Amino acid sequence: MLGKTRHLINLRRWQFASAVFERVHGQVQNTDAVFPLDLFQRFMPIGEMCRFGVVTASDRASSGEYEDLSGPAIVAFLEEAVSSDWEAVTSVVADDREAIELEMIRLCDEEGCSVVITTGGTGPAPRDITPEATESVCDRMLPGFGEQMRTVSMKYVPTAMLSRQTAGIRGSSLIMNLPGSPRSIREILDVVFAAVPYCVDLIGGPYIATVPSVVDAFRPPHARRE
Amino acid sequence: MLGKTRHLINLRRWQFASAVFERVHGQVQNTDAVFPLDLFQRFMPIGEMCRFGVVTASDRASSGEYEDLSGPAIVAFLEEAVSSDWEAVTSVVADDREAIELEMIRLCDEEGCSVVITTGGTGPAPRDITPEATESVCDRMLPGFGEQMRTVSMKYVPTAMLSRQTAGIRGSSLIMNLPGSPRSIREILDVVFAAVPYCVDLIGGPYIATVPSVVDAFRPPHARRE
Amino acid sequence: MLGKTRHLINLRRWQFASAVFERVHGQVQNTDAVFPLDLFQRFMPIGEMCRFGVVTASDRASSGEYEDLSGPAIVAFLEEAVSSDWEAVTSVVADDREAIELEMIRLCDEEGCSVVITTGGTGPAPRDITPEATESVCDRMLPGFGEQMRTVSMKYVPTAMLSRQTAGIRGSSLIMNLPGSPRSIREILDVVFAAVPYCVDLIGGPYIATVPSVVDAFRPPHARRE
Repeated sequence: MLGKTRHLINLRRWQFASAVFERVHGQVQNTDAVFPLDLFQRFMPIGEMCRFGVVTASDRASSGEYEDLSGPAIVAFLEEAVSSDWEAVTSVVADDREAIELEMIRLCDEEGCSVVITTGGTGPAPRDITPEATESVCDRMLPGFGEQMRTVSMKYVPTAMLSRQTAGIRGSSLIMNLPGSPRSIREILDVVFAAVPYCVDLIGGPYIATVPSVVDAFRPPHARRE
Repeated sequence: MLGKTRHLINLRRWQFASAVFERVHGQVQNTDAVFPLDLFQRFMPIGEMCRFGVVTASDRASSGEYEDLSGPAIVAFLEEAVSSDWEAVTSVVADDREAIELEMIRLCDEEGCSVVITTGGTGPAPRDITPEATESVCDRMLPGFGEQMRTVSMKYVPTAMLSRQTAGIRGSSLIMNLPGSPRSIREILDVVFAAVPYCVDLIGGPYIATVPSVVDAFRPPHARRE
Repeated sequence: MLGKTRHLINLRRWQFASAVFERVHGQVQNTDAVFPLDLFQRFMPIGEMCRFGVVTASDRASSGEYEDLSGPAIVAFLEEAVSSDWEAVTSVVADDREAIELEMIRLCDEEGCSVVITTGGTGPAPRDITPEATESVCDRMLPGFGEQMRTVSMKYVPTAMLSRQTAGIRGSSLIMNLPGSPRSIREILDVVFAAVPYCVDLIGGPYIATVPSVVDAFRPPHARRE
């Protein structure tokens, strides 16, 4: 463990993959055994499945002192909001600058996540260090995300002003910080996620489609498919 | 003088201290003489009185060309808004980067101010240098303060866009910039101060209570007392 | 050419200059020949004509692949909005950091532009580099411009969050970034330009007067003329 867990989620992905595999090879006995990631990827149009990295930065969740509710809240949002194919890679790390940086680098560069969403560590307390870690691994910052996330949260609590959350680009990955509270996470993603799919287009990632009743992602007409 | 004045205010503090002292030692003749700060502090719960530093950055006010109205406007707000015990340490310095930096450092590190509020020097003119001084003495910045302060002032004048005011943390002190105009100071503090008490909690300072009809300071339920 | 064109616009300037010249010297045959810029400037109160630099940053417009519509949209706005004397110096450069920086430096330091407005190159795509170029040539940044420009555009499209546009001061010049879309340019200038004249006052530039029905520029009472 050592403060890090990993799950592969998105059952729809496996259901779809299983269906394809069955059509090609007949009935499957043990999906886990016959269906490692690299085999699966041969069936997917390259670059068209989006991997989301979800990083919970929390001393207490990483030490097992309490259960991480923030990472699962982000995944639950993605389950509702994203209609194109995707999967999530989740981890829980301590509020340690180097640990957060290394995990973000791993998710972007090794896991190929087009979007990395962090939760926690965005406040003014001494252990809050996620924004600094984010800035140090990004090539360029997107100040509009932090502004807009604070604007959204200010409708609920004035202390949203204290959040230092930011977002930026590392290579062809978007990294964005969310606060630690599951309720704030949802309030912010409901609004801010509308800009994520076109951002991922612009940095060369896969086409992300959303469920319009949850998030009405905007793209200029020339960038739309269907 | 040399562009720097200092006042100890908050009569309530002295009245309370005098009352305590009288109860212990009998009638007091010369409060100033028998009641230096270190003696006083023995009567106060440690860490529960908040010191506010108020720095007016202004060439003309520091040279005596005109009276400083901005610093007193901040103190007047504190008199109305803060119901827990506090005192203010005020000074007037020239629009000189080193002078402002040294004064902020002194207020944080020597005077033990948990909150340092500056006024003036936030515009785009060549002598306006308070935000740079602030950034250079802070460990970490709180961009939400600047955003929110400009958003508030934009309701009154479009030139609020020109303000470069910011805020940040130095050790266990919050430093925030306000513009020079007493009217703008009040408009901003009425809104922004709601996030100050919880910020001071998070950086390890004293518990600041406010008068709800003036400023409804927000804390999450677990951080509230009474 | 090499990705750079230059126009001298503002017909009103020439009409006024011609009228003055005719009154002094009699009928003019060939305005272009007898009226070079340095001669013209002898008739103008020094420092009271404002030069606007307009820089279109676009690989495709600079290579001639398509026509630049963004630079002309900015000039069209100025034609409507500015009632005091002005002229524009426009250029089109590739999305190349050094090219943009050199052009901004030239417009500020050699052409004497009090305001340089760029368009394009503000998004998250790898070639978008205008904000970095701006920050590197400016002495000090004005974060309120970027915030306010994004706030305006967010009313129209959520992807305005992705814009990294900023503004800053170089010497006595204001440099501000606009996005590439002519419609966004207009939406933003309609709001943001209200703060430009007083900003130029504060950094020592000429007095810019505006047409109130287009832009109601704000100045504090002590800074107003007429």
